[in-house]
Amino acid sequence: MRAWEAFHAMQQRPASDRADLLDAIASHITALGDGLLSTTEGETGLHHMRLLAERDRTTTTLAMFADAVREGSWVGATIDTSDATRKPVPKPDLRRMLRPLGPVAVFGAGNFPLAYSTAGGDTASALAAGCPVIVKGHPSHPATGEAVAHAVAQAVRELRFHPGTFSFLHAGGTRTNAIGQRLIQHGCIRAVGFTGSVGGGLALAQIAGDRPDPIPVFSEMGSVNPVFVLPHALKQQLRSIVDKLYASATNAAGQMCTCPGLIMMIRSDEAEDLVRALADKFNDADPMVMLSPKMRSNYLARVREITQADGVELRGGSPQSAMGSDGPVRAAPVVFRTSFETFRRSPTLHEECFGPSTIVVMCDDEQQLASAAAAVQGSLTGSIFAGGYDAALANQIQIILEQRVGRLIFNGVPTGVEPCASMVHGGPFPATNQPHTTAVGRYAIERWCRPVCYQNAPEAMLPDELRSDNPRRVLRLVDGKWTRDTLGPR
Amino acid sequence: MRAWEAFHAMQQRPASDRADLLDAIASHITALGDGLLSTTEGETGLHHMRLLAERDRTTTTLAMFADAVREGSWVGATIDTSDATRKPVPKPDLRRMLRPLGPVAVFGAGNFPLAYSTAGGDTASALAAGCPVIVKGHPSHPATGEAVAHAVAQAVRELRFHPGTFSFLHAGGTRTNAIGQRLIQHGCIRAVGFTGSVGGGLALAQIAGDRPDPIPVFSEMGSVNPVFVLPHALKQQLRSIVDKLYASATNAAGQMCTCPGLIMMIRSDEAEDLVRALADKFNDADPMVMLSPKMRSNYLARVREITQADGVELRGGSPQSAMGSDGPVRAAPVVFRTSFETFRRSPTLHEECFGPSTIVVMCDDEQQLASAAAAVQGSLTGSIFAGGYDAALANQIQIILEQRVGRLIFNGVPTGVEPCASMVHGGPFPATNQPHTTAVGRYAIERWCRPVCYQNAPEAMLPDELRSDNPRRVLRLVDGKWTRDTLGPR
Repeated sequence: MRAWEAFHAMQQRPASDRADLLDAIASHITALGDGLLSTTEGETGLHHMRLLAERDRTTTTLAMFADAVREGSWVGATIDTSDATRKPVPKPDLRRMLRPLGPVAVFGAGNFPLAYSTAGGDTASALAAGCPVIVKGHPSHPATGEAVAHAVAQAVRELRFHPGTFSFLHAGGTRTNAIGQRLIQHGCIRAVGFTGSVGGGLALAQIAGDRPDPIPVFSEMGSVNPVFVLPHALKQQLRSIVDKLYASATNAAGQMCTCPGLIMMIRSDEAEDLVRALADKFNDADPMVMLSPKMRSNYLARVREITQADGVELRGGSPQSAMGSDGPVRAAPVVFRTSFETFRRSPTLHEECFGPSTIVVMCDDEQQLASAAAAVQGSLTGSIFAGGYDAALANQIQIILEQRVGRLIFNGVPTGVEPCASMVHGGPFPATNQPHTTAVGRYAIERWCRPVCYQNAPEAMLPDELRSDNPRRVLRLVDGKWTRDTLGPR
Repeated sequence: MRAWEAFHAMQQRPASDRADLLDAIASHITALGDGLLSTTEGETGLHHMRLLAERDRTTTTLAMFADAVREGSWVGATIDTSDATRKPVPKPDLRRMLRPLGPVAVFGAGNFPLAYSTAGGDTASALAAGCPVIVKGHPSHPATGEAVAHAVAQAVRELRFHPGTFSFLHAGGTRTNAIGQRLIQHGCIRAVGFTGSVGGGLALAQIAGDRPDPIPVFSEMGSVNPVFVLPHALKQQLRSIVDKLYASATNAAGQMCTCPGLIMMIRSDEAEDLVRALADKFNDADPMVMLSPKMRSNYLARVREITQADGVELRGGSPQSAMGSDGPVRAAPVVFRTSFETFRRSPTLHEECFGPSTIVVMCDDEQQLASAAAAVQGSLTGSIFAGGYDAALANQIQIILEQRVGRLIFNGVPTGVEPCASMVHGGPFPATNQPHTTAVGRYAIERWCRPVCYQNAPEAMLPDELRSDNPRRVLRLVDGKWTRDTLGPR
């Protein structure tokens, strides 16, 4: 398979060449200009400004990984030097670093046609790690996928990487599952990246796990992103919280993995004010364009399930248009309200509703609020709005959420995932199937690697980062000390 | 559950207290003196000298993790500071580090009653991470397990950790599977460590995966540890290679996860000399004491399978005693020989044979040797014996093995796993089910953690390692630069 040849060819080149490749991909995507954005707008219904921001985010991500690859410390180079005089047995020379797994299959997301798709974070981090990438194009934005794939291929050619370094498969219609399955089963594929539904992510992981040589699948899946609004925050910042929650829940028609799906509060006059103000905003909203008829029908089915749950009240938004009278791709945003007791006993309220909706859970007291935190499923994010006097309760909620989310946000909403080194876009099941990883940020590279230890290896057989002369001056842990120094002769 | 209370209590104490706990555990184990070693010798049949070395290794491991916890950089603290002036949206403050998962269940190994059992690497690394540990005692060394558990509990008491910080369950006989299953299914258990067979490791992973909230299981399982002896190495170091291979394959009656199960060579006079010399050593060996009647019967069953495979020749060792006439726990070491073609088509030759045996695979040429490397299953180790003129072939084999093993050894045998920062004791399936991890060495801590990102968190709500004043002076990646400095006010 060409991707495997490309993998070995990549290993022969200095790491900085991969950084140049990532920069060239960013340039070629930018060079596609407004034409790309118009194509994507037409395919997805996402607004021009949003797509402009998403393109910037895509190129920022490529640049971030280029920087990380040039800097070099991401490999975790670690050296323990030998001691021939040690008794009873001599100590060997041991050197360890992350090494790339091999060709990676990427299944992009429908909701981020640029940032989590053809040349999105999975592709960028895999190429950064030194892994060729085969993208299965998302069927809901084929023209966007092809345009971006051309940009990547152009960069690959320009920098004289092996043509198997990047491939793009059109796989829409009835073939989409079969092609995906064959790709994951192919002996040359060594890892898989996926962004999408819980069902989809688990299905791919199952196929990969059933191989004679199981391979890792990194699935970013469903997330409810609970938001806790504490009493003093309600008193101090009610209007601003309402505006932020509404904007976050309806951003891109709620089709964000970080859409705030649960809003937890303690019953009070201010909490009722918040519900009313939020309901007004949902009532005033026009039906929103969704990514595809399939997304819309999934959304409406979930809205129906939630509406029909005992003890759940529709508080804002137009149930009629939400239920199916606004054409093939529009749907209304809706806000529900329920009690802690209803939430506790209703599994359907714990699951993601992908679209412009949110559920307010009203608790009786602090104890119930803490129990609500303990009851939420694994999630990408958890938010705490806390005022000055909320510190003790905020701390209690924080300790519970630290066990359940990848990112804890203080006085802010979950949407807005910053592509930077510290970002964690991951979390316990069902947010992901691999809670030790992140899909965004510098540490996303590590998914495509495995640590390898070299024992008593001749210098000539070591990767650059582990050679005694440390030609790239990477930061290394040598005999327990962090240093960029060279080592003496062995 | 007490372990969960203990977990929260652990988070309230400075990390250095955990380091003190690990040191105290080491002291209490050492204080058990020869009494412990005699008990273990009686239960396992392992020799006194081996157990002395294993005890040293256990205390060295505890000390290594204590050092790592005191040094503090293992958490991967990473900070991106805010930029309120950024357009179009302000940049938030983001800080990320590894955080402990919660209570961990440890299923120790039968073959390392000290180093991979009650207070072995899994327990030490989980406590280092800040996770309480519940050990399911191994039924083949209950008295050893209990003695070590007492030492750990004593250290926990002395340092006033919550009593739920460490628990030990006796679980032998018919209850062993049921107790193991209930432990993994318990809602408070957040991760599992296991060392043992492929079947056992996969069964535990299945139970954990079937939970409503799946948890990670880190299983270290079966490994064949292929050894490639290249032509010039054969010419230069034949005698020494024979001695090393024999010692490695029969060390602890071959009951090591790093026992060299496959020896790959290119047909030549020297290769035949090696087989003859090795066969002589196996012929001269007495039957060896195995860990338990069950280990012995499993070993004999595997020896029988291999003996019966078409094209496999028994070259050394006593088939009769190996087949079952040496009492309840003794079995003879055996060496087989086969061709590349037979190896290629016989799945049974690719699987671990846990006991004092090895298979020589004779290849026709360099091409077949490379194909043999490409045919081996995922393994903890791969060894290459290479002389001065073997460099090109060694490089070819190395590139293939890098995809298949966790540790690549040059001119050495796989046994002897050094507990140090650079060690990788892991590898692709079936060596482990989590190839991105290691069961030995500093990085073993990371298994019990998950990255958490704090966005715009008040200083008071941040863990020490992420506070602006960096009270522990840990090395952190701040805005792309590695530093131990404090940050200015926000």
